[in-house]
Amino acid sequence: MSNERTVPATGPRRARGRPPATARREQIVDAALEEFAEHGFHNSSLAAVAERVGLSQQGLLHHFPTKESLLISVLSRRDEIDDAEFGELSDLDRLRDVVERNTGRPGVVRLYTLLSAEGLAEDHPAGDYFTERFAALRVRLADALRAAHGDRLAGGATPEQAATLLIAAMDGLQLQWSYAPGAVDMPDLMGVLTDVLRGGETGDRAD
Amino acid sequence: MSNERTVPATGPRRARGRPPATARREQIVDAALEEFAEHGFHNSSLAAVAERVGLSQQGLLHHFPTKESLLISVLSRRDEIDDAEFGELSDLDRLRDVVERNTGRPGVVRLYTLLSAEGLAEDHPAGDYFTERFAALRVRLADALRAAHGDRLAGGATPEQAATLLIAAMDGLQLQWSYAPGAVDMPDLMGVLTDVLRGGETGDRAD
Repeated sequence: MSNERTVPATGPRRARGRPPATARREQIVDAALEEFAEHGFHNSSLAAVAERVGLSQQGLLHHFPTKESLLISVLSRRDEIDDAEFGELSDLDRLRDVVERNTGRPGVVRLYTLLSAEGLAEDHPAGDYFTERFAALRVRLADALRAAHGDRLAGGATPEQAATLLIAAMDGLQLQWSYAPGAVDMPDLMGVLTDVLRGGETGDRAD
Repeated sequence: MSNERTVPATGPRRARGRPPATARREQIVDAALEEFAEHGFHNSSLAAVAERVGLSQQGLLHHFPTKESLLISVLSRRDEIDDAEFGELSDLDRLRDVVERNTGRPGVVRLYTLLSAEGLAEDHPAGDYFTERFAALRVRLADALRAAHGDRLAGGATPEQAATLLIAAMDGLQLQWSYAPGAVDMPDLMGVLTDVLRGGETGDRAD
């Protein structure tokens, strides 16, 4: 849970005053997250990640023997970032907040969009991760919706259907938003969808 | 509109009886569509596409000098497939039908999901294509919604908001469905969303 973070996310190179191994690993993972977000997993190289943290490729291999092992750590890191948020998914308004926060981190959004699609390719190392993540997220969100809104939402939608649709809309909005941040108001649209699913009015929502 | 299709999509190799150049080009584009759908654009090679149609790489370069030029043709080909469908988007029920049809072509769905995400990477040749495609699709669907349902849908959602959400849900459902076809009933979920946006009941929808 609490990870002893002692170095900045991707701070300047530190030839001297080397951070201990754990901090170094975190530094590498954050750099990889940025590299993957920019170029996708397949198009990224360990050499480029190493360069971002001022290591030789050999030095990086000491911490992460393969690009796949680094990817798994990047995905776990992203889950850590998300968990604090999705953990509190007690009602639909929280979902809008999560989306709101995502507008402030376009790199992480792009990373997620890219990797979740890349994971569909045959034998991609992130394939199992996303299969399990989506299944778990659907259950978790459906449980939260049932607890807050009962067995039926607007139009007779079940919590399971609403959960799958909300996750889908979130993912699809991130894709459209990444192409046109100015034209797609993600939090507002998420607010519209949650309002509609609750059977409420959208127009007069207070900000 | 009608394209004189004389060869099967990706038929068996034809060492003899070479098809004319146009048919050959179509054959290559269909093979590339399959190759890209399986491995994504960046991870596909012209050599693999050439092999699928029984050509040497040199032979393929005669028709498509670069992988990028082939990609543009693949995207146009996909638009041809889609256009007949999206062209008739007169009401929300049609949208469910489009999704229904997509369940029968997982390869094309995966191709679209992969390429639309890959396009976000810096300098990706499909970037402009998707930026324009999403913008045009939002306008087109919003116009159709306004014509059919007026200026407000359920909960006060505007046709523009509903259009963006519908496209997002479609894209997000394709992603979840590609990971778990058995667990995500795309057409049914699209039906739920369109019903909710119309302010109707979902439970008793006739199939």
